[in-house]
Amino acid sequence: MTKIPYRFYLPENEIPTQWYNMRADMKEQPDPLINPATMKPATEEDLYPVFCKKLAHQEMDSTTRYIDIPEPIREMYKIYRPSPLIRAYNLEKALGTPAKIYYKFEGNNTSGSHKLNSAIAQAYYAKDQGLTSLTTETGAGQWGTALSEACSYFGIPLTVYMVKVSYEQKPFRKTVMQTFDANIIPSPSSTTSIGRKILSENPNTTGSLGCAISEAVETATSTEGCRYVLGSVLNQVLLHQSIIGLESKKAMEILGEYPDVVIGCAGGGSNLGGLIAPFMQDKLTGKANPRIVAIEPASCPSMTRGKYAYDFCNTGKITPMARMYTLGSSFIPSANHAGGLRYHGMSPILSKLYHDGYMEAKSVEQSRVFEAAVMFSKLETILPAPESAHAIRGAIDEALHCKETGEAKTILFGLTGTGYFDMTAYSAYMEKRMTDYVPTDEELQASFDKLPTIPTME
Amino acid sequence: MTKIPYRFYLPENEIPTQWYNMRADMKEQPDPLINPATMKPATEEDLYPVFCKKLAHQEMDSTTRYIDIPEPIREMYKIYRPSPLIRAYNLEKALGTPAKIYYKFEGNNTSGSHKLNSAIAQAYYAKDQGLTSLTTETGAGQWGTALSEACSYFGIPLTVYMVKVSYEQKPFRKTVMQTFDANIIPSPSSTTSIGRKILSENPNTTGSLGCAISEAVETATSTEGCRYVLGSVLNQVLLHQSIIGLESKKAMEILGEYPDVVIGCAGGGSNLGGLIAPFMQDKLTGKANPRIVAIEPASCPSMTRGKYAYDFCNTGKITPMARMYTLGSSFIPSANHAGGLRYHGMSPILSKLYHDGYMEAKSVEQSRVFEAAVMFSKLETILPAPESAHAIRGAIDEALHCKETGEAKTILFGLTGTGYFDMTAYSAYMEKRMTDYVPTDEELQASFDKLPTIPTME
Repeated sequence: MTKIPYRFYLPENEIPTQWYNMRADMKEQPDPLINPATMKPATEEDLYPVFCKKLAHQEMDSTTRYIDIPEPIREMYKIYRPSPLIRAYNLEKALGTPAKIYYKFEGNNTSGSHKLNSAIAQAYYAKDQGLTSLTTETGAGQWGTALSEACSYFGIPLTVYMVKVSYEQKPFRKTVMQTFDANIIPSPSSTTSIGRKILSENPNTTGSLGCAISEAVETATSTEGCRYVLGSVLNQVLLHQSIIGLESKKAMEILGEYPDVVIGCAGGGSNLGGLIAPFMQDKLTGKANPRIVAIEPASCPSMTRGKYAYDFCNTGKITPMARMYTLGSSFIPSANHAGGLRYHGMSPILSKLYHDGYMEAKSVEQSRVFEAAVMFSKLETILPAPESAHAIRGAIDEALHCKETGEAKTILFGLTGTGYFDMTAYSAYMEKRMTDYVPTDEELQASFDKLPTIPTME
Repeated sequence: MTKIPYRFYLPENEIPTQWYNMRADMKEQPDPLINPATMKPATEEDLYPVFCKKLAHQEMDSTTRYIDIPEPIREMYKIYRPSPLIRAYNLEKALGTPAKIYYKFEGNNTSGSHKLNSAIAQAYYAKDQGLTSLTTETGAGQWGTALSEACSYFGIPLTVYMVKVSYEQKPFRKTVMQTFDANIIPSPSSTTSIGRKILSENPNTTGSLGCAISEAVETATSTEGCRYVLGSVLNQVLLHQSIIGLESKKAMEILGEYPDVVIGCAGGGSNLGGLIAPFMQDKLTGKANPRIVAIEPASCPSMTRGKYAYDFCNTGKITPMARMYTLGSSFIPSANHAGGLRYHGMSPILSKLYHDGYMEAKSVEQSRVFEAAVMFSKLETILPAPESAHAIRGAIDEALHCKETGEAKTILFGLTGTGYFDMTAYSAYMEKRMTDYVPTDEELQASFDKLPTIPTME
C-alpha cells in the first residue's frame, strides 16, 4: 500500500453535490421549536418573518435525507473547497502514539473558518428570494466575516451586530468585515429598542452574544425585505455544514480508512454537527459504530453540565424556544475565557443525539486547550483558532490514551479554523496571564432557575 | 476537454524533488560578490563566518542546474505543499476579460507566505552542520515567522531582530514568532555595537531593515556556533523558492496550459525569482518565450528607477557588496508605505536578467495596489498580503489590456501570502487615510551619491 499523503484533496468532481440531513435517519426527532407568542409548536410559516422561506423550510424538514446543493452555492464552494484532509504524521510522531490522526482543515478561506459553508448557502437563498438585506450578530468574528464574504459575493447588503467588547478588542476583525462592505454596529446599540433598553439599564455594558442576536433579529423583523441569519445551532446550519463530514468520509474511503473516533469542538454545534453527519448516519443505520466525541470548554459546558430543557436562543427572548442542552440563556461565560464556543445552548439535533446516547461529551480547561494549540502549531504549520484547539486537545488526549493501551485507533477531528485574530489570547497564554475558569454549581443553578417553564413533551 | 478546476493540487508524488538553479542556464553570470575587507571577489570561504557551509556553497554555485532537496526538507514541505494553482474564474468574470488568469497561492501555512520554503532549507542545513543558533531580521514579519516555524521544527534556537516600528505596531506578529519559541529583539538594540551606535546617535529611531540586518549579522559572527540567515535577495533563497515555479509549471502542464505572461511582486526577489525560475529557463534555453513581469512599489522602485551598481546589502556595510539594481543602501522608503517590498536592492540574479532584457518591470502606487487587493478578496476568498497584491494589480492590468485588445492570453501570477497581519493598512485604505508616495528624482540622487565606488567589471 502506498503511504497515505500528508494532505489529501478530493478531486473537484468528487465534491459532494448534496447535503445530508441527519434528521431523516434519526429514530426519534428533536422536540419541536416553540413559538413564544402562542406557546405552541412553531410552524414553517411562523419562521418566515425571521428567516427566508427556503431556509425556514430546511429548518423544519426532518424527512428529506439528501438535499441538492444549488449550483451557485457549489460554484462558490469550488473556490475554496475541497478542504484538505490532513494526516497529522508529525503530531503522531511527537506523541509517540500508535493511533493514526486525521484532521479536516476548514480554515483555508478569508473568513478563516468553516462558517463560510453555511454563510454562502444562507446568503444565496436570501438573494434568490429577492431579499434586499440581511442582519446577523458576531462575537469572536468568524461568523460575521464569513457572512460578510458571502453577502459581498452574492451582492446583498449586510448589517452585523458585533458584541461591543469584541468590536473594541478586535478592530482587525471589524476591518476584514468592512473589506467585504458589511455595516458593523457595536452591540448593544441605539439602533434597536432592545439595545436602547439594555443601554439605559447598563450604559457601560460590554455586550453579549445573546443581546447581539436580539438586536439583529429585531432589525430584520422590522425592516422591509430584511431577514436574519445565524451561523450555528440551527438545523439548517448543520445541514449546510454536512459538507465537512461528507468530504471527510469520501476522502477517507479513497484512502482506505474509516475513523474509530470522530472528535469535534462544540459551541453551538455547527462544525460538530457537520463533521459527524455521515458518521452519525452510519451509527443510526447500523452500518458502523464509530465513537463520536464533542469537546466543549469547561467554562461554558452546555452538554456536560447543562440541562436538557426548553430555552430561549437569545436573551431578547423573541426567537422560538428550542429544547436543547443549555446553561440557561442568562448564563454568560467568564470574560477571561478566550476560546470562543461561548454559546449557552447546543444544537437541538446534537442535544437529542447526545441525550439518546449516540455521542459523548467532554469538557476541557482553556490552559490545556492552548497547550495543545501551541504544540500543534509547531508540528503542523497551522496556527489554530482557540475554538478549533478544543478538538485538537481531544484528539491528543485520545491519542495519548492509545499510547497507554497500545491501540492503533484511527482518529478524525475537525480543525475548524485559524487563529490569526486570536493572538491576544495566545499572548496571554504564553505570558502565563491565562487562568482557567469553571462555573460553580451555584452559578449554574442560578441560571437554570431562570429557564422558562415549558412542558418538555416527554 | 474537461473544465479546468478552480484549485489544482499536484499529487504528492509529483512534487519536485530538486530545486532549479537559474544561473546554470544564464549565458552571462551576475557580477561576483565583493568582499568589503579585501575589495576582491568574495570566495565561498569568505562567506563561512556568516552563512553555514552548504548555504555558502549554494550561494556561489553557478553551474549545478538541479540540486536534490534533502529528504528532511521534503518531509516538511509535504506538510503544507503542494500549494494550489488556482484559476481565478471569478476575477476573470468580474473583469470581463478574455484572458485566463492563474495564480499560485503560497499563503497556506502559519507563516502566511512563501518565505517558509527557504526558511526550512536554511534551518535544516544549519542544524545539519551542527550549528547551535541562528539570527535573522524581520520587517513586516513574514520572514521572521517563517524562520521561527522552521527553527522550531528542526530544534535550533533563533534570535530575530525586528525593526522597532514593526515590533511596536505589530505585536501579534511578535506573538506568533514567540509561539514558535523565537527570541524577538526590537532593533536597534543594545545587544550589538552597531545597535548601540545607532541608538546613541538617534535614541528615538524606529529602526530600519538595514539596521536590523546589521545587528543580526553582528550577533551571528560574534557568537560561537551561530550563523545568519536571510529571507530574500540571495542566490540560495531564489534556489529554494524555485519550488514555487517548478510546481506551477508542472501543474499547468497537467492542465494543458503554459503562461504567456508570468507576473510576480518584487521586493528583494525571493518570490519573483522562485516563481519565474523554470519559465526563465525556457527563455534562456530558447524553448519558449513567455513575458516575465516584475511589479514593484512606486515608493521603492529599485528596478524601474534604481541604478545597476555595486552596493551594500545592509546599512552596517559588513556583508559582501553585490551588483544589483539599487536605490542605494541609504534609501529608506516613506513610512506611509504599507505594502512591504521595502528593500533598497534587488536580487543580483534578477538584476542581471532584467539588465539583459529577459524581464520587464513596472511600478504601481499603493492605493491602486489596495484597490486590487480588496477586489480580489471579494472574488477569490483570499485576503492577500499587500506585497502579494502588487502582483494582483499587475495581473488585473494585464487582463484589462487583454480586454481592450481581445487577446485571450494565459496569465500566471504569484500570490505570495495572506494579509491577516496587515489590517491596519487595509483599514487606512478603506477609511481613505492612505496616500501615495513616490520619491523625487532629487531624493533618489541623494541616495545614489552615497553608493560605494567600485568598478563594475564591465
